[in-house]
Amino acid sequence: MQVRADFEALDRADPLAAFRARFALPDNVIYLDGNSLGPLPRAVPGRLAEVMEAEWGRGLIRSWNDADWISYPQRVGDKIARLVGAEPGTVLASDGTSINLFKLLSAALTLRPERRVILSDNGNFPTDLYIAQGLGGLLDRGHELRLVEPEAVAGALDPSVAVMMLTEVDYRSGRRHDMADLTARAHAAGALTLWDLAHSAGAFQVDLRGSRADLAVGCGYKYLNGGPGAPAFLYVAPALQEAVRPPLSGWFGHTSPFAFDLDYSPAGGVARNLCGTPSVLAMAALDCSLDLMLEADMALLEAKSRALTSLFIETVEETCGDLGFTLISPRDPSRRGSQVAFAHPQGYAIMQALIDRGVIGDFRAPDVLRFGFAPLYLRYIDLWDAARVLRQVMEEDAWRAPAYQTRSRVT
Amino acid sequence: MQVRADFEALDRADPLAAFRARFALPDNVIYLDGNSLGPLPRAVPGRLAEVMEAEWGRGLIRSWNDADWISYPQRVGDKIARLVGAEPGTVLASDGTSINLFKLLSAALTLRPERRVILSDNGNFPTDLYIAQGLGGLLDRGHELRLVEPEAVAGALDPSVAVMMLTEVDYRSGRRHDMADLTARAHAAGALTLWDLAHSAGAFQVDLRGSRADLAVGCGYKYLNGGPGAPAFLYVAPALQEAVRPPLSGWFGHTSPFAFDLDYSPAGGVARNLCGTPSVLAMAALDCSLDLMLEADMALLEAKSRALTSLFIETVEETCGDLGFTLISPRDPSRRGSQVAFAHPQGYAIMQALIDRGVIGDFRAPDVLRFGFAPLYLRYIDLWDAARVLRQVMEEDAWRAPAYQTRSRVT
Repeated sequence: MQVRADFEALDRADPLAAFRARFALPDNVIYLDGNSLGPLPRAVPGRLAEVMEAEWGRGLIRSWNDADWISYPQRVGDKIARLVGAEPGTVLASDGTSINLFKLLSAALTLRPERRVILSDNGNFPTDLYIAQGLGGLLDRGHELRLVEPEAVAGALDPSVAVMMLTEVDYRSGRRHDMADLTARAHAAGALTLWDLAHSAGAFQVDLRGSRADLAVGCGYKYLNGGPGAPAFLYVAPALQEAVRPPLSGWFGHTSPFAFDLDYSPAGGVARNLCGTPSVLAMAALDCSLDLMLEADMALLEAKSRALTSLFIETVEETCGDLGFTLISPRDPSRRGSQVAFAHPQGYAIMQALIDRGVIGDFRAPDVLRFGFAPLYLRYIDLWDAARVLRQVMEEDAWRAPAYQTRSRVT
Repeated sequence: MQVRADFEALDRADPLAAFRARFALPDNVIYLDGNSLGPLPRAVPGRLAEVMEAEWGRGLIRSWNDADWISYPQRVGDKIARLVGAEPGTVLASDGTSINLFKLLSAALTLRPERRVILSDNGNFPTDLYIAQGLGGLLDRGHELRLVEPEAVAGALDPSVAVMMLTEVDYRSGRRHDMADLTARAHAAGALTLWDLAHSAGAFQVDLRGSRADLAVGCGYKYLNGGPGAPAFLYVAPALQEAVRPPLSGWFGHTSPFAFDLDYSPAGGVARNLCGTPSVLAMAALDCSLDLMLEADMALLEAKSRALTSLFIETVEETCGDLGFTLISPRDPSRRGSQVAFAHPQGYAIMQALIDRGVIGDFRAPDVLRFGFAPLYLRYIDLWDAARVLRQVMEEDAWRAPAYQTRSRVT
């Protein structure tokens, strides 16, 4: 039986403990939703003020050159590359995750013209599936989105599969696919792989190069703390870069955008996957946040992520084991992302009551309470305290309040 | 023969003169490039600081509800609608211009499945043409991008044309199409119309509804002053909204994004054309800038735009008429956007010399000096002074400096 002092001791021994002060986390909040929206790094407002006042305000149009705005997608992409085990020149920060997925899924289908199946699993984040459906409808060539249970993906690989499109970490359960193993199996079946790293990048060590992944996308506003709706990223393995013909062939991906040729000619390398003018304000916020994250040792982050999630499972089961919560995340930390999910029939109302008491997780239909554990700024006492608040909400029947019964929240 | 005092008198009589102080324009700069990047509204840094510190920092994920981030695309879109003669519920602020064009061009081709021609002109901004080429290649159904001279568009309308895709104002010459007339001709030929308002919105009165335009896109960072890479916008006429099947079918355009269904089902109305999570920082900047622009009377803006551009032509021809500049913009202000362009064989070097002397316009290949006249913040004396600096650059041979001979600038 552990006590709060044990968790305080863990915090004192935490080599990452100093990072918490670099974030503007509000008092009286235990923030277990950094997997939905990372908190504000304290350095960002100052950096953005400089971009606005000096670069935009005084530099005006000249800042595309003088402040090097023009290379933001590549510069920020190279920083993300270091977090996901990718080489320089393989990652771009651009657009949103859904749009980047559209680009690369389209590329994959073009590279396997004789195959008609997009293989995914029914735990994938819905927007990924919607994008596949939209692209399939647009192409109208009989592509099939084959959805199987996450455990059945390997067995569903066959010579009809053009691309295996998976999110590494299930947004609800936190179940984590084995990227290297599934990629090898996909390649053995002649399929390409397209990984969504939305719940991976910044949470634990990702090794795109070592896994031999072909294509990947990911999100800038979760564990990368780039701000609400931050630019997303995309990865194209070096061997495929010159073979990709971008469907969203905008001028920023042109070999010579300022020649204003009438005909599209793709830029060399990954840059051809750019489309239009990126938001400089959004890029600057993400860039600033990445500088902070890159100060941390990714091996330490992964170790702390595993410790936090394992301890939270243990603590909730010890504290609330009799209250109807069912763990739906894997118990083996190597098979889990940096989050923990419990199902409960009253999940929605319980989560609203928790949020009102300052424990911010989120709810995912139909019955999932989801808690994210961002190792860069969370403390061990946070999970101890969160479990205690959960117990209180249940004991006091706080979740029964009428205000918590109506599903009015959009996130 | 006019003198500077005449221009000072015009400024004293300008009913829009007070707006200039609302922008953070640097001293010693005459900014004639607001058609490339609008300047910083003074209110934006404070608004962004509030969004960062209060909404992101303290509100965290709750701000999607509590600060109503979720409806930003619609709220900002409705503000833009007022500037372009569109009804509420027809415009969305989202993504970039190129991506929005891809969405609507795809929609147009789907609505005219038996037709194979995208009609445009060779003065269109290249990214629009690139997007059409990319979409055509992706669909691989024999679509043709038919490019004609701007004056030949009406004559090129025939029953093979699925969509007439035009930028209202030519980015180089400033030549302006007659939107209502060409739209009526396109409809008579059974074609849909897709207008790019990049150089129109915020510069003069646009009447999408009155012109019976079907589809339109536009840019947030030029005359709308939304900041570098600001969100763009798209318009879908009410009659077409339910017929559009979005190709970039992301979760923000789903009828119920937070139900996390596995199948895509488009939202009602224009909202289905959203894709992924919008950048809140970028949206907030554009939103703040639009509030400023909406204080101005659009009829006054258009009148001042015409006066500024006409006077600039007159003044440059009077001041520099002997120096090899050729006007390539229409002399009739009703056939011109809010910009003036002169061709000159040494155009690139001359523009670099001008910029170094604080007169910021831009150069467009092969030989075009382009000057934008944003009526919200420019003064009449600015164009007088700019013409004098141009004269100096030529008389002193300043443009011959070696630094100005190499084309190193990207914008």
